[in-house]
Amino acid sequence: MKLQAALDTLTLDECIKLLEQTQGSIDVVEVGTPFVIEQGMVPVRTFKEKFPNIEVLADAKIMDAGKYEADKCFDAGADIVTVLGVSNDATIKGVVESAKEHGRKVMVDMIEVKNLAERTKEVDQMGVDYICVHTAFDVQATGKDPLDDLKVVNSVIKNAKSAVAGGVKLATIDAIVEEGAGIIVVGGAICNAEDPSAMAKEIKKHLK
Amino acid sequence: MKLQAALDTLTLDECIKLLEQTQGSIDVVEVGTPFVIEQGMVPVRTFKEKFPNIEVLADAKIMDAGKYEADKCFDAGADIVTVLGVSNDATIKGVVESAKEHGRKVMVDMIEVKNLAERTKEVDQMGVDYICVHTAFDVQATGKDPLDDLKVVNSVIKNAKSAVAGGVKLATIDAIVEEGAGIIVVGGAICNAEDPSAMAKEIKKHLK
Repeated sequence: MKLQAALDTLTLDECIKLLEQTQGSIDVVEVGTPFVIEQGMVPVRTFKEKFPNIEVLADAKIMDAGKYEADKCFDAGADIVTVLGVSNDATIKGVVESAKEHGRKVMVDMIEVKNLAERTKEVDQMGVDYICVHTAFDVQATGKDPLDDLKVVNSVIKNAKSAVAGGVKLATIDAIVEEGAGIIVVGGAICNAEDPSAMAKEIKKHLK
Repeated sequence: MKLQAALDTLTLDECIKLLEQTQGSIDVVEVGTPFVIEQGMVPVRTFKEKFPNIEVLADAKIMDAGKYEADKCFDAGADIVTVLGVSNDATIKGVVESAKEHGRKVMVDMIEVKNLAERTKEVDQMGVDYICVHTAFDVQATGKDPLDDLKVVNSVIKNAKSAVAGGVKLATIDAIVEEGAGIIVVGGAICNAEDPSAMAKEIKKHLK
């Protein structure tokens, strides 16, 4: 069970400081989508160079040109790249093809997938590594929680591991750990904590 | 009727040369998603600085954190930002809110939207500027063409203008122009032409 820290709102220097202070707690460092939009692959290259033992996930949320866009991320050093579950099968397969060529991994982000069980079964046949249930940031205010979706995915996957993202915090981590997932993604609860490093270490203690 | 050139596969220097050679032909320069993934907002800033009279579209394909991510694009100088039609309504509304604050525009990319007429009607009520039918690059090999989708969108929109993307080329431009759209997006047909500048000028001649 890995802890993935989604870094969306910190500066590059703040991220580096966090990773230095939490060695051993953060298994996967996520270059969040806003970070990619602002700086492209610069943070991916920086993290991989400074922290070769931490996996780097590029949250590119690929929606088209799967092979071409994934190649860019893997060539920059990403260990894991995200593709959207709502994208065309051909796009997901292109990302998988790129990952296999590079010896890296694919996470499918199931954000806004309507037919979750059915789509999970389809995606699970495509050679992806992680299927991530994800409550959108923009809908977290409604109180929606990714735990129910995680249960759906866990009940149907046969090949990939599950992952979970979207508002996960100290108050909800134990129920998620109990349900089980290959990767647990925590963003705001770490980035917006008074002491992000202490929070990352505390959350890591709850993982199995 | 505007010509938007989607620049995905050229270097930044090649893009600048193309824009210098085609002054008056390209109305909107699109910083394509692979370009954003690689370089973030650098191309947006560069184009806006060098070509203040050409509109710059950031093809961020926003899927979540609508306001936050759109703010980044508009702050960098983008005139138009894309958000995915498959995203949550709250995300599209966040992008619209950001656009209104900045006095800029929103294009909804309808790629992989299943219920096109129904979703177009919904999105058309949200204050967006363009609704873009889009045949994914990854499915163009199947022979699918965006013209039929354009007809669907044109038949139901009341507020936004339509746009069209996905494999548009010299051989198909006249039928699209005949159907009508606010923006016609041309990518590979320009970027991969032997003489990209000549091709952009030729295609522009076909627009009304």
